[in-house]
Amino acid sequence: MSATGLFISIEGGEGAGKSTVIAALQEALAATGREVVLTREPGGTPEGEAIRALLLDPANSLAAETELLLMFASRAQLVRQLIRPALARGAVVVADRFTDASFAYQGGGRGLDMGRIAELERWAAGIKPDLTLLLDVGVAQGLARARARGGEPDRIEREREDFFERVRAVYLARAAAEPARFRVVDASQPVQAVREAVQAALAGWLGSRP
Amino acid sequence: MSATGLFISIEGGEGAGKSTVIAALQEALAATGREVVLTREPGGTPEGEAIRALLLDPANSLAAETELLLMFASRAQLVRQLIRPALARGAVVVADRFTDASFAYQGGGRGLDMGRIAELERWAAGIKPDLTLLLDVGVAQGLARARARGGEPDRIEREREDFFERVRAVYLARAAAEPARFRVVDASQPVQAVREAVQAALAGWLGSRP
Ligand SMILES: Nc1ncnc2c1ncn2[C@@H]1O[C@H](COP(=O)(O)OP(=O)(O)OP(=O)(O)O)[C@@H](O)[C@H]1O
Ligand SMILES: Nc1ncnc2c1ncn2[C@@H]1O[C@H](COP(=O)(O)OP(=O)(O)OP(=O)(O)O)[C@@H](O)[C@H]1O
Ligand SMILES: [Mg+2]
Ligand SMILES: [Mg+2]
Repeated sequence: MSATGLFISIEGGEGAGKSTVIAALQEALAATGREVVLTREPGGTPEGEAIRALLLDPANSLAAETELLLMFASRAQLVRQLIRPALARGAVVVADRFTDASFAYQGGGRGLDMGRIAELERWAAGIKPDLTLLLDVGVAQGLARARARGGEPDRIEREREDFFERVRAVYLARAAAEPARFRVVDASQPVQAVREAVQAALAGWLGSRP
Repeated sequence: MSATGLFISIEGGEGAGKSTVIAALQEALAATGREVVLTREPGGTPEGEAIRALLLDPANSLAAETELLLMFASRAQLVRQLIRPALARGAVVVADRFTDASFAYQGGGRGLDMGRIAELERWAAGIKPDLTLLLDVGVAQGLARARARGGEPDRIEREREDFFERVRAVYLARAAAEPARFRVVDASQPVQAVREAVQAALAGWLGSRP
């Protein structure tokens, strides 16, 4: 929970439309008069972007533990260099993925121990989003979108379909376990409908705050 | 403890002479007829060397937590890709630094919690050296050697003297706490004397094994 700012993360599998809806979210948030800071994971800082390049390069063959530690290295840097300072000055931070993605991908996808990830969350991240928007779409539909985007698939996009089924299942389980923090949006709809659903979820959440 | 191979690490502060004595060590070990595998940390694998570049680049400003996580990301990769397979086929692995360096630099130097590092050691590294040769030299003498080597100082070499005093103190404390694993060599001597002391320490340790 942030002290004075607001921390929002956007989660979902490959091609769910996270990057696509961020602009709409930014627009809705700017209307509140607050400073809005957009960032992404892995990455978001110069050091984190270098770590991102390592993580996504298909030439690298990373042990699951290495992958998890690199994700948290990027996250530790992002929290300290960008997120905490922004929240301290009262900004709204919108992150394209955050720690839920490690539970889903490294925990669900790779099968690493969830308790270990929770431990790293407490120590290396130290903060949780106030609101997490989960864009949920069927695995095949999301992968088709990501492929239609073109370009070479990155190291993670090359995983098999059952990997992404486990990712999706963990995301949905986490949303069910923390209903106050999560809003699940049906991302199988056309872009405009997803944008509106995201804005409505945000408005509903903001309205529900004390 | 390795199953069939032998795992030896060389530790010490900046300019202690770790890289310089490795050749002498390799020679002495080759005489045992075993396969000898030399490696270094951070690095030792293609992915680890990319992480090393991030860690040592003076342009990067890394949070202490980020630095620790990157060190263990490199280590997790090195253990799984190189050290464990080599030990499994009976080789002697000689590592220019290993986990003791994280206790000394990130624990002692940066002040991170030692229990946290021990936790990462158990989970991300999972192995400890059978023998650790600690090259001990006064901080000023070691730094003078490293500087005389020429080239721009890397991100860690730019730290202040009290940082390296804390590094040295942790190394010595660890050696005192684990006398069966550590051999401390006086590295303030001339190169040839250090080489001979290292070979004698190795021979003594090998001779003392059941
Ligand atoms: N609701 C939608 N319907 C159809 N196509 C969409 C929809 N949302 C996004 N797309 C398209 O699908 C592709 C992937 O979208 P986007 O890059 O926003 O997904 P993402 O969740 O950010 O993916 P990644 O996980 O790879 O970052 C893009 O080409 C985008 O234009
Ligand atoms: N015993 C010694 N006496 C004098 N000079 C030495 C001695 N050992 C090494 N040197 C010189 O000091 C410099 C640092 O040695 P070396 O690179 O082996 O240290 P290191 O412990 O590997 O340092 P780093 O921590 O930077 O990797 C080199 O130029 C080397 O030739
Ligand atoms: Mg995206
Ligand atoms: Mg060296």
